[in-house]
Parts: sequence; C-alpha cells; structure tokens
Amino acid sequence: MMIIMKTTATKEEVENVHQRVKALDLHPHQISGAERNVIGVVGDGRPVEVTAFIRLPGVASVIPISKPYKLASREFFPENTLIPIGNNHVVGNGTPTIIGGPCAVESREQILEVAKSVKEAGAHALRGGAFKPRTSPYSFQGMGEEGLKLLAEARDLTGLPIVTEVTAPELVPLVADYAEVLQIGARNMQNYALLKAVGQTQRTVLLKRGMSATINDLLMAAEYILAKGNQNVILCERGIRTFETATRNTTDINAIPVLQALTHLPVVLDPSHSTGHWEYVSALARSGIAAGADGIIVEVHPHPSQAFSDGAQSLKPKRFMRLVKQVNAISNALKAEDISTNPLQ
Amino acid sequence: MMIIMKTTATKEEVENVHQRVKALDLHPHQISGAERNVIGVVGDGRPVEVTAFIRLPGVASVIPISKPYKLASREFFPENTLIPIGNNHVVGNGTPTIIGGPCAVESREQILEVAKSVKEAGAHALRGGAFKPRTSPYSFQGMGEEGLKLLAEARDLTGLPIVTEVTAPELVPLVADYAEVLQIGARNMQNYALLKAVGQTQRTVLLKRGMSATINDLLMAAEYILAKGNQNVILCERGIRTFETATRNTTDINAIPVLQALTHLPVVLDPSHSTGHWEYVSALARSGIAAGADGIIVEVHPHPSQAFSDGAQSLKPKRFMRLVKQVNAISNALKAEDISTNPLQ
Amino acid sequence: MMIIMKTTATKEEVENVHQRVKALDLHPHQISGAERNVIGVVGDGRPVEVTAFIRLPGVASVIPISKPYKLASREFFPENTLIPIGNNHVVGNGTPTIIGGPCAVESREQILEVAKSVKEAGAHALRGGAFKPRTSPYSFQGMGEEGLKLLAEARDLTGLPIVTEVTAPELVPLVADYAEVLQIGARNMQNYALLKAVGQTQRTVLLKRGMSATINDLLMAAEYILAKGNQNVILCERGIRTFETATRNTTDINAIPVLQALTHLPVVLDPSHSTGHWEYVSALARSGIAAGADGIIVEVHPHPSQAFSDGAQSLKPKRFMRLVKQVNAISNALKAEDISTNPLQ
Amino acid sequence: MMIIMKTTATKEEVENVHQRVKALDLHPHQISGAERNVIGVVGDGRPVEVTAFIRLPGVASVIPISKPYKLASREFFPENTLIPIGNNHVVGNGTPTIIGGPCAVESREQILEVAKSVKEAGAHALRGGAFKPRTSPYSFQGMGEEGLKLLAEARDLTGLPIVTEVTAPELVPLVADYAEVLQIGARNMQNYALLKAVGQTQRTVLLKRGMSATINDLLMAAEYILAKGNQNVILCERGIRTFETATRNTTDINAIPVLQALTHLPVVLDPSHSTGHWEYVSALARSGIAAGADGIIVEVHPHPSQAFSDGAQSLKPKRFMRLVKQVNAISNALKAEDISTNPLQ
Repeated sequence: MMIIMKTTATKEEVENVHQRVKALDLHPHQISGAERNVIGVVGDGRPVEVTAFIRLPGVASVIPISKPYKLASREFFPENTLIPIGNNHVVGNGTPTIIGGPCAVESREQILEVAKSVKEAGAHALRGGAFKPRTSPYSFQGMGEEGLKLLAEARDLTGLPIVTEVTAPELVPLVADYAEVLQIGARNMQNYALLKAVGQTQRTVLLKRGMSATINDLLMAAEYILAKGNQNVILCERGIRTFETATRNTTDINAIPVLQALTHLPVVLDPSHSTGHWEYVSALARSGIAAGADGIIVEVHPHPSQAFSDGAQSLKPKRFMRLVKQVNAISNALKAEDISTNPLQ
Repeated sequence: MMIIMKTTATKEEVENVHQRVKALDLHPHQISGAERNVIGVVGDGRPVEVTAFIRLPGVASVIPISKPYKLASREFFPENTLIPIGNNHVVGNGTPTIIGGPCAVESREQILEVAKSVKEAGAHALRGGAFKPRTSPYSFQGMGEEGLKLLAEARDLTGLPIVTEVTAPELVPLVADYAEVLQIGARNMQNYALLKAVGQTQRTVLLKRGMSATINDLLMAAEYILAKGNQNVILCERGIRTFETATRNTTDINAIPVLQALTHLPVVLDPSHSTGHWEYVSALARSGIAAGADGIIVEVHPHPSQAFSDGAQSLKPKRFMRLVKQVNAISNALKAEDISTNPLQ
Repeated sequence: MMIIMKTTATKEEVENVHQRVKALDLHPHQISGAERNVIGVVGDGRPVEVTAFIRLPGVASVIPISKPYKLASREFFPENTLIPIGNNHVVGNGTPTIIGGPCAVESREQILEVAKSVKEAGAHALRGGAFKPRTSPYSFQGMGEEGLKLLAEARDLTGLPIVTEVTAPELVPLVADYAEVLQIGARNMQNYALLKAVGQTQRTVLLKRGMSATINDLLMAAEYILAKGNQNVILCERGIRTFETATRNTTDINAIPVLQALTHLPVVLDPSHSTGHWEYVSALARSGIAAGADGIIVEVHPHPSQAFSDGAQSLKPKRFMRLVKQVNAISNALKAEDISTNPLQ
Repeated sequence: MMIIMKTTATKEEVENVHQRVKALDLHPHQISGAERNVIGVVGDGRPVEVTAFIRLPGVASVIPISKPYKLASREFFPENTLIPIGNNHVVGNGTPTIIGGPCAVESREQILEVAKSVKEAGAHALRGGAFKPRTSPYSFQGMGEEGLKLLAEARDLTGLPIVTEVTAPELVPLVADYAEVLQIGARNMQNYALLKAVGQTQRTVLLKRGMSATINDLLMAAEYILAKGNQNVILCERGIRTFETATRNTTDINAIPVLQALTHLPVVLDPSHSTGHWEYVSALARSGIAAGADGIIVEVHPHPSQAFSDGAQSLKPKRFMRLVKQVNAISNALKAEDISTNPLQ
C-alpha cells in the first residue's frame, strides 16, 4: 500500500501517519520524492483496509498495491513514465530511442570516430565503458577517468549524451560528473549498495537485467533506486542464461510486453549482449521494436576485429546505419496503421 | 560429406560408391530423394578428401559438410527451401504464413466457427488438435478420428488446409489421410520412431522444438525426417524452459536468425505456447516476423474461457484479425524499404 | 479424489459410482488394478465432499488427493512401494540396488564380459541398450532383437535380470519378452503412446526423467503408466539441462528427497548421464545414496575408449567394483547409526 | 603461464622479467604473495615457450597453465590448500567443517542461543548475517554493526569463529574487524570492486557461487581475490537457477567433484539455500559430504517460524545435531574403508 501525502502536508502529519502504520504492526517506508512525500506500507500479507489511513490529516490518497515492487508498478503509476536522456531526448514517447557505441572506450581516435558515425546514423546517445567489469582479473579493465574525459569530448563534438557504466558506490559521484546516464551492468543488478548510491542521485539510470534475474527481480532492483528518490530509471533486457549455446545469451523477448504490463518504466533491448554475434543483432533489434520496446542499445565499433572486448557482437557503422532504418521502418509502419504496440492490444 | 549421384547414375555406380566409402572405414548412408540418389558419408572425424569420390563413375558432385546435420544444413542447400501447405500455399516465399485455430477440436460448431473466422482474418491454414498429448492422463485427450473428420469438414467449408498433430507412429497413415500438415509436438521432438514414420510419407511436417532442445537438437530431429526421404519440413520455435516464471516458456527469438543462418528450411513461430498468455501473443507474433520468421502459428478460440485446453493463451477472432494486420504491416514495411530480413543483412 | 471399491464390489456398484460422479459434473477415471477397482475422480477445482461417495454401496474408502498425480502420490499410498526386478530382487527395501552395464550391447564378447564383471562387483541387474535413441540418424542405432538375445544369454550366464530400453509402442511386446525391466528413456518421458503401452504390461518400468521435465512432470508421466494398471514403476533421476557446461547435465540431487516426500515409488540415480564424465561418476553415486536414493544405474564398459557410445562416461569394471563398496559403506554407516535416510528425518 | 620468482630475486630481476614479457607482446600481471613474487603472463592464445623465461636471472620456475584462472587452478598448486577459520580450525584436511547459525542476527537472545546450540552439536564456526542483501528494499536489511557486536559476543561465549557477509567495499574493514571469515554472497559474486577489497585483506573469504554463474565464472571470481594477494579462499556451492520450481534452487552437486578436479581450494556446500526447504536440508548435507565436499554451512534457528528471513529453510537445533552425526558417520565410513573421496578415485 502506498500512502501519498498532500504537498502541503506538515512534518507532524507525516510523522502521525508513520505512527499509525506502526500501531498496526506494519512497517512504514519513507520515500522522499522531489515533490511530495510517499509512505510505503509493507505488511506481512494480512489485508489492510485503505480506510485505516485515507482520513488521516495530510493524506492525499491511498493506493493498494498487490506486487512486491511498489513505486515501479503500474498500479502506482498507470501511465508510461517518460525518462530524460540529457536535455534534448526522452525515452518512452513512442519513438524508438537509439543508443550506440563501443563496448569500451579504447582511445581518443576510436571513441570520436564511433561517436561521429552513430550520430550520423541517427543515434540519440553514445554508449561506451570506462570502468569495465570483466570476468577475468587479467583482462582490460577500462580506461577509468581518462575514458570518461574522452566520452565528454565525444559529447562536445557530437551533442550526444553519454551512457556509461558505474561499478562501485564510490565511483558514482565521479561518473555522474561526466555522464548523463549511469548504467548498472547485469552482474551488479543486485549490488544493493550500488543501487542505493545511484538512487541518491538524480541521474538517469539504465538498469540491466541480471543473467539469472527474473522479471520480478529486475523490478525489485529498480525499486531500490526509486525508493531512494530517483525516479529516472530505464530497464534493459540483455538476455538470460539458458541451456542454449548457439548464442551468448537467450534474449527474453517475452520480457518486453511483460514489463510493459507490469511497470510504467520504459524498457530498452540490448541485442548485442543478448545474442553475442553481430550476425544476429539486426534481427533482434527489429524484433525488440516490433514487440514494443522503447529503444535499443547496440555495440558499434569501426574495427570489430581489433576491439579490446566484445568484437564478435559489435556492428560496423554502416550496418548500424541500416539497422536504424529498419527499426524506424517498423516503428513507422505500426504507427501508420494506428496499431498500438501496447501489449494488451 | 554428401555425394550427389547423377540422375543418370546406374544401380551399379551407386553400389560402387558405397563400396568405396566402406573401403575407407566410413559409413555410407543412402538418402533416397524423389529425383536422385544422395549418399551421406559419415565418418569419425578424420578429414576425408573430396578427391576420393569426385571422379567415380556416376558421381555428380561432392559437398563437404561440417555440421552434424547434413541434409538440413545450408551447406547442403544454400537457397531457402519453399515448403507447400496444401495445393495453394507455400511457406518461405517472403510473405508471412499465417496458421490459426484452436488448441483442440472440441465440437463441430466450435471448429467450423473458428475456421470461418481465421479464414476471414487472412489465415492460410487451420490448426486444431484431434490427438492431444496432455501432461495428465486424466485430461481431455482429444476427439481422435472424429476430430479429424470435423477438420476435414472445416477445410471443405473454407478451403483452408489442415495442420494437426500426430502422436504415435501407428497413427501416421490415419492422420496423413485427413491433414495436409503433420505436426510433431514439442514432447515428441526426439521420438525417433515417430520422426522416421513421418519421414516415410511425403506430407509436409511441422516440427516443433522440444522444451529443452538446443537448436542443434532441433536440426538433428529434422535430419531424421529428411534422411527418410521427406524433404517437406517446417521448423517451429515454441519457447524453451528457463528459470523465468512470468511466462509459460521463454521464447527463444534468437533461434529465428540462427536457424536461418544454419538451415535452408523455413521457420515459423508459435507465440501462443511460447508465452502462455494471450496478452503477450500479438507482441510476440510481431517480433517473430520482424526477426525474419516465415510465419506464425497462433491459437484462436471464439470463447477462450470455455476452451478445453490452453484457453489462457488463445486469442479471440477479433484480436487475431488485428494481429494479422500488424504482422503484414511489418512485413510490408521491411519489403518497401527493400530491407532484407536475411539475418546477415 | 480416489474412490477405492471393495474387492467384493459388483459391476453394478462400480457403475453406480460412475453415474454419481457424472451427476456432479465430474469425470470418473477407471483404474483397473490387479485386485480391486479404483475410480479416480477428476474435477475442476471445486471442493467435493467425501461424503458424496463414502456411503455408496461397494465403496471401501475415499481418499482426497491434492496433487495432480493421484496413484503416484504418497497421499494415496503412504508407505514405500517395493518394486521387483526379476524374481530375486526388490527395489526400495533399504539396501541400495545396483544396476550396471554398457550403454549399448555391441557384441557377444562385450556383453558377456561386462555381465560377468558387474555380477562379480555385486550388481543386482544388468543394463544394456538394444534399441538406442540417438541424436543423429547416422549414429549406431543399436543391435535390435539380436541385442536382446545377447542380453538373454548374459542373464543365463550370470543370473542377473535385464534392464533395457524400449523406444516405440510396437516394440513393447518384443522387449518385454526378453527383459525384466523396460526402460523409458529421457527423450521419451512424455511419449504418451509409449507410456500407455508399457502401462498395459506388468513388467517393471524404469522411467527416466526428461531433460527439461519438472519433478511434477515426471510424476505425471508415471501416472500414465499406473493409470493403465501397471504399478511397477521405478523413477530415475538422470540430470537436467541447465546453463552449466562443465558437465553433460546437472544432476538434480534435490529431486531424490523431494520425490521421496511426494511419492511412494522408489527412486534411483543415474550418475553416468547426469555428469557425462567417468571422473565424476563415483562421487555422484555416493551422493545419491547418501541423499536417500534406492539405487544407482551406472554405465560400465571394459574398454571405454572403444565404446560405440557414451565411452566418456563409462566406468571400467575395477572402478565400478570400488564404487559398489563405497555405496554400501555409506548405506551401512547410516543404518548402523540408525539414521534414517527419510528426507524428513 | 606463471613465472615464479626465487625468494631471493631482486627488484631488478623482477622488472627484467616484466620487460621480457612485454617484448613478446604479452601482458605481465604482478601477483604479490606473502613470500615470493609471482608474475602471471596472459597472452592471446599463441603458444609461448617456457624456455623464453626459465633461464632469466631470479626465475625459480615456470608453470604453463591452460585455464583462464591461474592461481586458483590445480595446475598451479597440485595439492589441496588448507584454509584457516580462526586460530583452531582448518578447512580441507579431510574432516568435514561444520558451519551453522541463523540467516540473520536478530537479537542478543537469538544469536547467543543459536551459538550455544550449534557449538554443542559440534559446529566449528558460527554463521549469521549483520548486513543482509535482500531482494526487496522494504525487507529487514540486518542489524549492521550492532549485529557484528553481538556475533563477537557469541564468539566470546562459545569460542566459535564468526562467518558473516560483507556487501560493499567500504564495509570490508569494519566487518574484518569483527569476523574471522568474510562471506561474499551469491548476488555479489561478480561485484569486482568488492572482490578486490576482500583480496586486499588476509581474512579468509567464503565465496558463494552466483545463481547463474558457471563453475568457470566462480573460479574466475576467486582469481580476483587471489590475484590481490589473499590466498585464503573457500568456495561455496549454494544452488543455481533452473526451471525446477519444487525447490528454491537446484543444488549443482556435480560442482563438488568438478571443482575438486579443477582447483586446490576447498569447497563447502550450503544445503539450506540450495534447497530452500528444511525438509531436504539433511539429505543434501549428507550428499555433499559423500560427494567429497570439505564442509557444510547450514542455517539453524531455534524458532524458524519466527525468523526474520529464511525460516522455511532453517533447521531447529535438535535436527541440526542429528545432521552433524549423519555427516560424520558418512565421513568416517569412507575413511574407515580407506576410500578416498578424491573425485578421480
């Protein structure tokens, strides 16, 4: 249950609601939003009457929520949330968001070359890793702050906002200084210290689904960020682990309409990690948009065979440009026919 | 390695090749096609020189094949194979094939009503089960031959060819008498006695991927049918088993472009079983076509809440009609832009 | 709900119960056992009162059963069922049953040599495949009836009863002529025509869990056999498909105590298929017995490197002998301490 | 390849080896152990001759290592490593290590009561969480430092060393102040910032396998800790995510012998998380020891129904005591028969 306080509610009124919640042996959870106070009430499964709270002073409304995630649920916000990426782009407005760029920033030449080409192809943001979580401690771990500086230079050159990964709570202020979007990688989806840290900023967060995370787990991870007061969360499907070995992961394409039914947050697809082979990336990008995804995030590299990481799943700029056309063609066709991509239609 | 004999090759020339294969401690496998003899040579991993066979009398060509499946591989047939469904439709020609109908034939009224509505919506074939493999021995097991007769009546009424499941080798002649397409269900994908039985007919076979079958396993199952001389095989992705419980199965959408890279056989998607919830079926149907599938097979029922089986994943006719429009819009958009859905483009 | 008729119940009394079930809009399911009639009542989820049937003439007792499997459930038979293998051995009596032998019968010399060595090591039955379901149509498919004859000769030599696979309904009478135990392989676990066919014999059936079958699916497959009147079913865990590639399958060792809690049927473990590497077979065999399994079925081959199939997971006779000692040591240690292996103790 | 420097090697000699590695276009990786310098050489797959380094001044030996993990591999250390837990216990010496305690420290009374009972049952260490990673931000997150203080009090009372989880790099010094063993939870197995942080201490680390981590991933995570100079790592199998829903996770019992073949580090099993139901915990604990595990870590709670977390999988003290007897009986039986639990025997 979520208790929404009036914007005019006083501190005492908020405190009074907390006391009332505790008196019923329930746990109040203060969620501090930009505009108003929301008090999540987490119980033990017993039904709680809305009437227990609706008439208390300062209470604007009470919303019963059946899911374990509260702020992330469609029950809480029935409309789609639009999430900004930088000052000039929003995700979730019906036009596919295109994010492209290399797995990792490798050099000034590389990142500037990619940035120009993805801009030219029609991308709305540039991705690139400066802090890389790698399976092996002996693999290239990213250029660190030097990489962030190069990303900033690429933004200055192209106007594209930056999406880059943050891998530890203590790095959040540094990365937030340089990037418009903080990416949480699949391996860190349940690194709660990190989720809380990005939740305490107002930076947009791109939250990737963990390799073995259920859709419910993903929404609970988003809830950690939302509950800290940061409402700017984009979810990202990037493939899950299954028995199939023909591809690096199995794209859970079902997750696109399922998430749209369960949450108001936008969802993008990463067809690069979800397949692991560039040959299949375009087909998957198309399928994601056709299923209703709000955008795609794609690995692009001018010379994949020389990439420090993920070369096998990176598109060359020319193919990426063709993919953007395909994706837009699908989006336009569905719009032209006035066929909503709402999963329920 | 496949040794293709000339159409003019004599019995003795074929026999001579067999002897030569055995002399090299390899196993010859005679594949009797409609037009010419093909001899599969299965070895033990040692490299075999093409020159050992290419000059033998009656040999037209020799094709080295690296995959464990031979006749199913693109190395063997580089072009897409077109597979007929009845006399007036082919699968694989670039226009999405639409197959619709109920999980099971339940009554004369039901099947005739569905048949008319899917015909009207633009379907090319009618699906419906007469022999149902059910998890419980106490569940409705299908109407049997009576159901086949009703399917035939529905075909007479609408002109739609029939797709229906066959569950045991001894039922193959009976089902082949009534239906244009013999469906092998997911649970029987590695029922080799059944695969051999349908391989000995010339009926088109719709082969569904098993719940835990790899893409390689699926192609090996197809190889059983092809090796018996029946080249009319359509593959069907219908979801695999993973840890995710929000949907009945996890659609392996990656399998669409992967299969198109590996095999010349057409691939259709079953969005009903792959999601298990009607709410997600249309999104998935769209994603399949966008990924390059040759068609879809969808469960349609006029009164899902009263269906004997699979009601939760069945579309009502009106929604199915809308889905057909969506699917065609996507297909046309990609054609109009001259954007091939070839996975490699 | 199961309605147990008295042994003295007349045909009319049985028919009367059927009528009463139908009058309540439920489905009666006649289960013909050796000694008495049982009528399974399958409903639609509505609660049905036991009192509706308990006073009808000829009714001995009424057992409400909450699980979808009925005859297989512990609710139906609370005690462990002892299942015979041949005339001199029972499975489930607290002493581990040891079944050993090659994947496939390959020659007279091979099978007689293995039979003698597993007998000497202390095995209670000989396994060996004559009809082999193989992923590739080009692989060795077994010796067929010739293999069955060799197995019979091995039995004559050693006194060991025979466990061998049956792969199609039409082969059931033939295989039942030669073997004490009919094995249903993992790929055929949901081949319902085959399950019904073995259910119509009184041969003991060893039912292997499918690669992606849940524990519930396995029990439903057993129910198909039991519902046809054959109560002699042994369940076999042989590994499931997961993302882990270090082993051929992932042994679901949890399934041992879970099955013992849910069913009265005995459970054996196949550590050969569940690991795929001989190096790990002994460790897994020990773990199975320690977890409470009623026995093990192990692949043994005198010359694994020359085996036609599954050589990598076959033990040499000497190592098999050591494994039998280990398994018995564990079983005896638990008995000596009077520590039941009942999962609930 | 690992280059082991002599203990007498000078700084210049070490630097000289680094230069030589770079001259061959390879990457040197300095691993600073307590006693001597080791230089890992990570290449690009090309074969490198041992002779390129063996004769350089200061080099003691050169070990070619085929696996991606180096310090963790049996190729590097062929013998089992013994890992200390506190001053009086080592893991890996052939006697099962028993770790017991509650999921979370909940109160002074609770932790002292559990500590006394697990001590009495024969446990060697006490587990209990003070910082809890929870799926929901609204669930109990642990008592924090207050919980650590209570654990220390329990140690003072019983003499049992403490095993407790650390969830963020900045908490490592605090937790290391109180606990003998730093536990890395499954969700954090690839939280590389955290792995590096515990790698910089000399505290023993209990590293739990991630829910979707392969065995190779687990060893790579261990390598992160080892490469920072902390050799005291215990691996822990705690179940993986599969399609099976009868249990919370699927225990990958295969991982026990596989890990023993691949690494010199000890391996313990957590039967509580790997099953999720107390009814199956004892069976699994037995199976782990029989498979060769070096110990078990078990959740114990005096009043499971009132536990703040994981009550369903917690044993009561009396049952835990019985389990310890079972585990020791199996271990003794195998020793008495002189049957090594080495996977290869």
